[in-house]
Amino acid sequence: MPATTMEQLVSLCKRRGFVFQSADIYGGLQGVYDYGPLGVELKNNIKAAWWRAMVYERDDVEGLDASLLTLRKVLHYSGHEDTFSDPMQDCKRCKARFRADHVKDGKCPECGSTELTEPRPFNLMFKTHVGPVDDGSSLAYLRPETAQAIFTQFKNVVDSTARKVPFGIAQIGKSFRNEITVRNFIFRLREFEQMELEFFVKPGTDLEWLDKWRDARIKWWVDQGLDPNKIHVKDVPADELAHYSKKTYDLEYEFPIGTEELEGVADRQDYDLGNHTRYQDELALTTKVHKNTDSTAKLAVFDEEAKKWVVPFVVEPSAGVDRAFLAVMTEAYNEEKLPNGETRTVLKLKKHLAPVKVAVIPLKRNNEQIVSLAHQIKADLLKTGIGRVMLEDSGNIGKAYRRHDEIGTPLCITVDFESIEQSPATVTLRNRDTMAQERIAVADLPKYLKEFFL
Amino acid sequence: MPATTMEQLVSLCKRRGFVFQSADIYGGLQGVYDYGPLGVELKNNIKAAWWRAMVYERDDVEGLDASLLTLRKVLHYSGHEDTFSDPMQDCKRCKARFRADHVKDGKCPECGSTELTEPRPFNLMFKTHVGPVDDGSSLAYLRPETAQAIFTQFKNVVDSTARKVPFGIAQIGKSFRNEITVRNFIFRLREFEQMELEFFVKPGTDLEWLDKWRDARIKWWVDQGLDPNKIHVKDVPADELAHYSKKTYDLEYEFPIGTEELEGVADRQDYDLGNHTRYQDELALTTKVHKNTDSTAKLAVFDEEAKKWVVPFVVEPSAGVDRAFLAVMTEAYNEEKLPNGETRTVLKLKKHLAPVKVAVIPLKRNNEQIVSLAHQIKADLLKTGIGRVMLEDSGNIGKAYRRHDEIGTPLCITVDFESIEQSPATVTLRNRDTMAQERIAVADLPKYLKEFFL
Repeated sequence: MPATTMEQLVSLCKRRGFVFQSADIYGGLQGVYDYGPLGVELKNNIKAAWWRAMVYERDDVEGLDASLLTLRKVLHYSGHEDTFSDPMQDCKRCKARFRADHVKDGKCPECGSTELTEPRPFNLMFKTHVGPVDDGSSLAYLRPETAQAIFTQFKNVVDSTARKVPFGIAQIGKSFRNEITVRNFIFRLREFEQMELEFFVKPGTDLEWLDKWRDARIKWWVDQGLDPNKIHVKDVPADELAHYSKKTYDLEYEFPIGTEELEGVADRQDYDLGNHTRYQDELALTTKVHKNTDSTAKLAVFDEEAKKWVVPFVVEPSAGVDRAFLAVMTEAYNEEKLPNGETRTVLKLKKHLAPVKVAVIPLKRNNEQIVSLAHQIKADLLKTGIGRVMLEDSGNIGKAYRRHDEIGTPLCITVDFESIEQSPATVTLRNRDTMAQERIAVADLPKYLKEFFL
Repeated sequence: MPATTMEQLVSLCKRRGFVFQSADIYGGLQGVYDYGPLGVELKNNIKAAWWRAMVYERDDVEGLDASLLTLRKVLHYSGHEDTFSDPMQDCKRCKARFRADHVKDGKCPECGSTELTEPRPFNLMFKTHVGPVDDGSSLAYLRPETAQAIFTQFKNVVDSTARKVPFGIAQIGKSFRNEITVRNFIFRLREFEQMELEFFVKPGTDLEWLDKWRDARIKWWVDQGLDPNKIHVKDVPADELAHYSKKTYDLEYEFPIGTEELEGVADRQDYDLGNHTRYQDELALTTKVHKNTDSTAKLAVFDEEAKKWVVPFVVEPSAGVDRAFLAVMTEAYNEEKLPNGETRTVLKLKKHLAPVKVAVIPLKRNNEQIVSLAHQIKADLLKTGIGRVMLEDSGNIGKAYRRHDEIGTPLCITVDFESIEQSPATVTLRNRDTMAQERIAVADLPKYLKEFFL
């Protein structure tokens, strides 16, 4: 059965090198994590799967990789400077600061004083300064979402690719939110990674596209191994919607900590391009935007039928990479009772997500012929393009199998004495899920593995 | 011939969607760029080539993907807080601030005043604050290099992978330096991306490994298409070396702006692990490190022969992704005189780096059969795993070829009337470099392309 507690995952992630606390040896930076040797592979595989589905397999999406440092004006006109905040209260006695919803009965949670400031908004964005002088003019932000650069580069993308609506711009990358409370491992982070698509459509076709994207995204999550019965669609009630959103679906998943948001699919209408465009008054915008006196570009497309400039509506599927990682690990984690009474932990990751595709294990690490053949096999299999093939020369076959079950390696190949004594050479191929072992000719491996993985 | 001016590259990069100025529509954020639809693909391909060579093809390297937000203590003990700075002078009259080496004849470059402060160090690191209160205790930095997290996570990686020296930890990711002067397009950036390997070796074997890595890295650059005659190795003179470095090679390349550093390969001895370890006094360190009273970990390995704990020496090949991008573009850029007197611009990128591997072009965009076959071919070719295959339905075959020459697409496939009228179906295959066209059966395409690309 899948993981039932976060502790199971946290423990495996640290022990096997998936995820470590950032700056661990100095007590850690709260809400910030590092991905270890296996974590980086799993994360990269998740991102590659998204990119493939969103960009390569479609004919209507382009990619982008924009900067994290963000000009203040971008986040002023996007609305983040005004509204992206949590209400906070300060204790006048002990000077501690708290989220207003953590202050109970009007008393400071730290010292119990009732002398508190009124709740004031605290902006969740990380500030920094660009250039040598720390004055107001040099203030910049770390982006709180990848989406804004997609909007500000809309015209450059259209001009360089000649795209017409409907089309989308996809982006994967880090974002930063100075969350007041961080918890639940990599579920809520201050530094996190997003996979966002902004899909630009003709106004009036937006609700249809919204449903299409909801369905496409659910399918993608299921393709990554998530149980469809544990994915729930929340049709966000009107009174919870952002003022610019016509309709939003939250895709939720049954994490070990409860059912929580995995991805949002939102109809944002013309709010974003409208915010960043010049000539706002001429564009008959639907949403209430920030008056823009700085933008130099008209973020609109010419409608040949209606003979007028139109600001496309935006449908946005926005997912978190770290939550995807957590969901995929939750689902893949299994503790199985074996016939001999022992328990094995096995990560039943989808093959395309597995950090290591194949482990090649020389039975004796001090037998030159065996080790040499193992190296040769590894090098040959790498050429098939299936991903990471690893030489596992820890020298203990039982331990090697256990380790590779725990990290989700779909296949192990063991090179033994038979392999070097018999001709043609054969090896043992062990399947992670069935634990079945079969003998296979070395010459047949590339073809077998290509069919297995690709 | 390759690009001779930066302007040629800048122009192509913007026109075709490789690189845009960040926040372009608001006047731009200086020293910060966004990678467009083709830039993101080329950049990802460069990173994948590095990862493959440094992690997958070796048996002695693990990967890591650490956070950008960095605990202050990490950069205190690494030495960056003290020394990572440029000397700056302030004008007392007009309050402007300048790099000391830009102040000529002791006069303010802005107002000409000679009332200047003494040069003072200005730290190149970006500061921010983590958590709700902006006090000293919450100060954090954006990492100025990826390397430090490799050192602080050394023990976690060793514990989770059971690695023994010699072995390395590789990382690709963003770094940030608040450079005073940024120029030359993506050559010197405030936000940039690095590909760094920290390779841990037994002291005494470090110089040998340094030379091995110098050679391996030159080979890698040549594999990415760089002319070996334009790569120069600078053996950094002793008086230019950092105090902890025994020896450093700079790999330089003939960029259009001159011969400049592409990558550093440095013997850093035990400085880095020494800085971040506890029990410094017991470890007989070679370099002069910062006294560490905060680290909770001993960053050393037990030498079974000598029966003592030893801090490994570090050999570091450190390359910039953006500079790699610029070098690869410089080398690939070609303006060719054609027999008909016209000039064509063609990006002769190595196949594995090309943003689009194959463009599938329906000759008539309004012929349903042709378009449908083109879609089918695209979908089939995507399954081969060669990378991005793109449907190019701009409708003008001449323009499509020109565009794909300029963006470096190695092969174009044109679906025409013959394709739908004849059986078995054939298409035209056009080669970017030779411009030769040949007829090939649709059924033979996957095999042909796999051999061509993999």
